[in-house]
Amino acid sequence: MALVSLISDAAAPLDVLAVFEDMRTARKNDYVNNIWRALANDPQQLAATWQQVKAVMGPGALDPLTKELIYLAVSAANNCEYCLHTHAHAAGAKGMTQAMFNELMQVILLASQTNRIAIGLQVPLDERYRQPPELSR
Amino acid sequence: MALVSLISDAAAPLDVLAVFEDMRTARKNDYVNNIWRALANDPQQLAATWQQVKAVMGPGALDPLTKELIYLAVSAANNCEYCLHTHAHAAGAKGMTQAMFNELMQVILLASQTNRIAIGLQVPLDERYRQPPELSR
Amino acid sequence: MALVSLISDAAAPLDVLAVFEDMRTARKNDYVNNIWRALANDPQQLAATWQQVKAVMGPGALDPLTKELIYLAVSAANNCEYCLHTHAHAAGAKGMTQAMFNELMQVILLASQTNRIAIGLQVPLDERYRQPPELSR
Amino acid sequence: MALVSLISDAAAPLDVLAVFEDMRTARKNDYVNNIWRALANDPQQLAATWQQVKAVMGPGALDPLTKELIYLAVSAANNCEYCLHTHAHAAGAKGMTQAMFNELMQVILLASQTNRIAIGLQVPLDERYRQPPELSR
Amino acid sequence: MALVSLISDAAAPLDVLAVFEDMRTARKNDYVNNIWRALANDPQQLAATWQQVKAVMGPGALDPLTKELIYLAVSAANNCEYCLHTHAHAAGAKGMTQAMFNELMQVILLASQTNRIAIGLQVPLDERYRQPPELSR
Amino acid sequence: MALVSLISDAAAPLDVLAVFEDMRTARKNDYVNNIWRALANDPQQLAATWQQVKAVMGPGALDPLTKELIYLAVSAANNCEYCLHTHAHAAGAKGMTQAMFNELMQVILLASQTNRIAIGLQVPLDERYRQPPELSR
Repeated sequence: MALVSLISDAAAPLDVLAVFEDMRTARKNDYVNNIWRALANDPQQLAATWQQVKAVMGPGALDPLTKELIYLAVSAANNCEYCLHTHAHAAGAKGMTQAMFNELMQVILLASQTNRIAIGLQVPLDERYRQPPELSR
Repeated sequence: MALVSLISDAAAPLDVLAVFEDMRTARKNDYVNNIWRALANDPQQLAATWQQVKAVMGPGALDPLTKELIYLAVSAANNCEYCLHTHAHAAGAKGMTQAMFNELMQVILLASQTNRIAIGLQVPLDERYRQPPELSR
Repeated sequence: MALVSLISDAAAPLDVLAVFEDMRTARKNDYVNNIWRALANDPQQLAATWQQVKAVMGPGALDPLTKELIYLAVSAANNCEYCLHTHAHAAGAKGMTQAMFNELMQVILLASQTNRIAIGLQVPLDERYRQPPELSR
Repeated sequence: MALVSLISDAAAPLDVLAVFEDMRTARKNDYVNNIWRALANDPQQLAATWQQVKAVMGPGALDPLTKELIYLAVSAANNCEYCLHTHAHAAGAKGMTQAMFNELMQVILLASQTNRIAIGLQVPLDERYRQPPELSR
Repeated sequence: MALVSLISDAAAPLDVLAVFEDMRTARKNDYVNNIWRALANDPQQLAATWQQVKAVMGPGALDPLTKELIYLAVSAANNCEYCLHTHAHAAGAKGMTQAMFNELMQVILLASQTNRIAIGLQVPLDERYRQPPELSR
Repeated sequence: MALVSLISDAAAPLDVLAVFEDMRTARKNDYVNNIWRALANDPQQLAATWQQVKAVMGPGALDPLTKELIYLAVSAANNCEYCLHTHAHAAGAKGMTQAMFNELMQVILLASQTNRIAIGLQVPLDERYRQPPELSR
């Protein structure tokens, strides 16, 4: 049960409706997810978050499916039920296969384990990794 | 400061040395990271974790760089200083550019925020996402 | 589903009933929340936790509504569904408006994001912040 | 040690310098914190995050000191060393007294404990809290 | 609702059925928990995880009940509803009494609180604890 | 670096000194850990937390060493560097062997992994575990 009401189209003020319309156009889909209807109680935050989603999740140096996998990994680590379900569907729509999902989970499980080794044993960072890695531009 | 001593080659029993040798061969690099020298206090766990790393992080349905990005995302969410440093270097060695790293961070930041919206507002899952997504095999 | 049974008034031993009575008096309300009925399986922990709630959540250098907002912020970060729901109601009863709740969420979202920047990029602490801040007494 | 280099003024491109200038003006202070110099590797994210800070942390339905307390609470829950240090100084500058800080910590400790009771015992949400609270607008 | 389908015996490939059979023999119980049926979408991960469970949770330097208590403590800290329920049953079957469970929760609550003190106040580690403890072999 | 000053004996008010004395007597050791000197900025919280430590960590239905193992497990999950170091020493003093520590870490790693499976795959709780386990009193 949400802590706030889910704002229907009928109850939405104009600035919220404008965001909903932009979503429908961008996604070629009439459905507006519950998270946006909940966030619509704060129209400014709604607009800012939607702008961030549009700016971040599109193609760039990383392709949209890779971004969905990263998003799912963070959501699993943060224990976000809502995010896992909605973005598993989004990833499926962008071409995630069962084999990819299996490997995503395998990496999450490995990291969950080795993160905990490093933390649980308080492993000191090796001298050689104390500089930022050189990344090509 | 580690909670356990870091096992040097000289102090390592034979089963530990065998794992270290396998690492050196697989990585074409003589250096053994501190996490493995800490874990070597439990030779069985060392061997099992190293097997898992070899099985998971190689090429498959996802390429090794994508796996490093996912690993970094989990490590950022889990606040693992050691893992972030060592795997940022690993990702750099596998071709991560500054632009890719920027986009990785952008997705992590977006997920950190939208995960918290879904949790903080206790958004109920939409009916349409209550089935597993259909993934092609 | 709770991991323990919820202790009804009829099933409560005397020391538990005494805590329930004190709650009813303090809150001018006959209803005892499920968390207390679950905790009543350990009467000593029940009494200690209730004492802590009474000592901490009342007026002091911070007013009770500010304390509820802080409590909600921690509960959102800890992903505690039960706590978010019950304390959103408590905050509402103490005067939290929709505008305050929106700003509470905005700060939580900002912190979720900037915490992750500092962690994800492993930003070193500036020299000038390495002393405790001077706080007036 | 940061995962990225800290961008000095000399090394900063024009769009980054513009953000630094805006910070200096807004804060009436020439110093730019390390987190911004790290984030400056991604000028767009730098600008977006700084806009969000300006929009969120100023006065509104909640005063700036209350927002700093909420920010500190989230940072303690998220275990962000950098954020705790820098925002403890910010809160001190905005008037947080030692007594306020003590009560902030008391609420964080109480919430850390009662959050864990609700989760550890899997307490089911009371029927009466399953509706959003009514908040005055 | 699972993100993947739960694999029934009828739908299970041979390598999955072999793991299920081994579970039934080891546990002297025909029932296979949902977590294994979900994990069976990745037969290799299923086999690896089951091997790890068998290797870790049996008697050793620590007895099986102590291991269940540790497992429950981690699951409470990680907010894993599924794990708390299934392992509370497992611990009960291995002899956990109500008094033991109460004390387990008391330690979890104490640690939740003192962990947050150390983090929230950023307490520096005492010089004397900067060496690994000497543990008898 | 602590966010607050560490209160020396010379700077401690009488109520703080009384707690320090009680610690020294209870632990037959003159040294007072930094966490208590940091917490001494809030004498009431200091006294309350010390009472809780004394009440919880002594012998009961669980022995003191088992309680230290549980405390370490929570501290590893919560990523508390200070707590891991100090309580690894406490556990060593109470008889934790290297073999016990290895098994403690093994259970933590297994739970870190299986917690993440249950969460990452959103495994639904089996009908049979929806009742509290029957625990003998």
